[in-house]
Amino acid sequence: MIDFPYIADICRQTSSKIVMLVVDGLGGLADIETGKSELEVAKLPNLDLLASQSESGMTDPVSTGITPGSGPGHMALFGYDPVKYLLGRGVLEALGIGVNLDHGDVAARGNLATIDQDNLLVDRRAGRIPTSESAPVIELLSQIEVSGVKLSVFPVRDYRFVLVIKGEGIGSAVTETDPQQLGAVPLDPVGKDDPSIKTAQIVREFISKSKDILRNRDKANSVLLRGFSKLPDLPSFGETYNLNPAAIAAYPMYRGLAKVVGMKVLKTGQSFSEQLETLQKHYANNDFFFLHYKPADAAGEDGDFDAKVESLELLDSLVPELTGLNPDVLVVAGDHSSPAVIAGHSWHPVPLLIRSKFTSGVEEGTVGFSENHCRTGSLGRIPATSVMMLALAHAGKLAKFGP
Amino acid sequence: MIDFPYIADICRQTSSKIVMLVVDGLGGLADIETGKSELEVAKLPNLDLLASQSESGMTDPVSTGITPGSGPGHMALFGYDPVKYLLGRGVLEALGIGVNLDHGDVAARGNLATIDQDNLLVDRRAGRIPTSESAPVIELLSQIEVSGVKLSVFPVRDYRFVLVIKGEGIGSAVTETDPQQLGAVPLDPVGKDDPSIKTAQIVREFISKSKDILRNRDKANSVLLRGFSKLPDLPSFGETYNLNPAAIAAYPMYRGLAKVVGMKVLKTGQSFSEQLETLQKHYANNDFFFLHYKPADAAGEDGDFDAKVESLELLDSLVPELTGLNPDVLVVAGDHSSPAVIAGHSWHPVPLLIRSKFTSGVEEGTVGFSENHCRTGSLGRIPATSVMMLALAHAGKLAKFGP
Repeated sequence: MIDFPYIADICRQTSSKIVMLVVDGLGGLADIETGKSELEVAKLPNLDLLASQSESGMTDPVSTGITPGSGPGHMALFGYDPVKYLLGRGVLEALGIGVNLDHGDVAARGNLATIDQDNLLVDRRAGRIPTSESAPVIELLSQIEVSGVKLSVFPVRDYRFVLVIKGEGIGSAVTETDPQQLGAVPLDPVGKDDPSIKTAQIVREFISKSKDILRNRDKANSVLLRGFSKLPDLPSFGETYNLNPAAIAAYPMYRGLAKVVGMKVLKTGQSFSEQLETLQKHYANNDFFFLHYKPADAAGEDGDFDAKVESLELLDSLVPELTGLNPDVLVVAGDHSSPAVIAGHSWHPVPLLIRSKFTSGVEEGTVGFSENHCRTGSLGRIPATSVMMLALAHAGKLAKFGP
Repeated sequence: MIDFPYIADICRQTSSKIVMLVVDGLGGLADIETGKSELEVAKLPNLDLLASQSESGMTDPVSTGITPGSGPGHMALFGYDPVKYLLGRGVLEALGIGVNLDHGDVAARGNLATIDQDNLLVDRRAGRIPTSESAPVIELLSQIEVSGVKLSVFPVRDYRFVLVIKGEGIGSAVTETDPQQLGAVPLDPVGKDDPSIKTAQIVREFISKSKDILRNRDKANSVLLRGFSKLPDLPSFGETYNLNPAAIAAYPMYRGLAKVVGMKVLKTGQSFSEQLETLQKHYANNDFFFLHYKPADAAGEDGDFDAKVESLELLDSLVPELTGLNPDVLVVAGDHSSPAVIAGHSWHPVPLLIRSKFTSGVEEGTVGFSENHCRTGSLGRIPATSVMMLALAHAGKLAKFGP
């Protein structure tokens, strides 16, 4: 709802604080045998208590039936129409590792890959080699030069890297080189407009020089590139909502998402405990905190029902540290569902809780934090782009609309 | 959602099969005395069982408060915004009887009517004369010529026919000639733009020559024309969703609707049993089937509560033949509600069921297939244009949107 035409007129700064906890892949589905979802099986005394103090509902990240990636899922929760403000994977990956992208730069996500003597793909991820092994390879790639532009190669993790191209008149409408199947020849990058045709030629040179440099290796001897993209022009989250926002996330992708909308990204650790410490430490400095919890999605994507239950129980055990701060508005949301029975993201609507001083008298739905609880809640089923407006309203940060 | 801007990127072909059963006029209303709707009174053991295995919800065909015709109701279920892609009745009627319309042709729906010596309307349907009696009359009309264009007149059934005008620079913004009340003079057709003013003059000539030819008849001695329309430019259903779709419908209107979106229309019989046989016979050949059930709407429009109950029970008795095929996704939807207490189409949202392997663990809402069951279901209340996206999602035919 960052596009609500009168938003600048109604967002006002106050001292109230909003914490938005995004549980990645929060929503699940009933296991066929037990008829219960991950949230229903998990023992969640703290989230259940929170649910009893909250308004609840379900969010649609993009629209009915659409399975969102993490990008659209988060953009929607931040209030940006995820179809209008579609972010490229290259840009997200680059921002996530702290690359300072300028407007006009083209970023792509890269894999180290293994090809055989006939240029046929043997392993799309080069055996998932660890960072210790990939770092010197990526260092070699970073020395490649192509005339007319400046190339930079940044390691991400394991077999993954980011390629950034800086230069005049380059475009990001370039097709990926990953054929997505083994035994195939990597695809030739194709540009869809003039600047992108020029860029595709640069990419071809980069790939060719990569293969020359890595020729003598038996694995990680080639690269695959995809997600060519540029930094989009986005309205600033903080300026639009009149907030001073900060993001606390362990994974590069989510730090990148926060950065692209203009949030301050706080230094934090890999564990959720460390993220909560970061929140506590900076709590006085900002009035909006985006806090990201990853493990639920990872377990869901692995199709591991029990691991997803465990990840939710781990989260639950740490919820008191969050509620202990007693933020004026506490939002618990998900960027999308990741049911273990689907072993991936899914199109299902996602549970939502909003707690504020205005929700303490609420008694709604069945007891306990789950899909079935939230779908009977007073918020109903709403677009995820509406969540920020609700959070602002509960925080007393939205003035009346219209005389 | 055929207009979802990235639909071409996410729709993928798979071997899974979708069957969409459209129960015309499915939704009803509580009888004032019993407090129960047609669906609640009807004994529907098979649909109740199906509901217990399905996600359920309610669809809005057009928008809140709008009572849709069959055209908008079906277009929405096929994913086309029914306001943007509005089809004329003349076009639908023409397509339904197999007329090969070209883009630019103007089609109108015609009635044989009876007028008196003073040109006052005595019977809008010429006593509903049967086809055997109307055929020679329509044969006479088909001999009428108007210079500059090519006229064709096609019999539909009983007193109904279709007029098709082929020619350069003609328009379909022509008002109807049916005054909708007896004792009135048929209306003069009026064109709203230059091509349509020209067309209105052609229509005037056609009507005048009709009256000359039919002058000596005591009934069916004139014509009424309405629903002037042209074939719209529509995105193809099959190409857009990456499906190979087939339609099975007994009535011309629904075959026409399927044809206009590009579905293959299968030859079938008049009864629903024959339609199910057609489905079984062609089941291997297509991955999407639109199956139309008419009697519920006919009974609702007649205001016959008991007949509507019976029509639903008849459908229910045949449901096992449908579920026996075990389609990957089975959708039960309605194009609109036709409550017997209203004796016509209505604006009420329409029950929806979706069954797939992802819904078998679902436990939702009250027991039994009805408006009250579906409105508490997990799908909530959604635009009918979203149903196709849900069907595709459940069929595993939609890739993730965005990184």
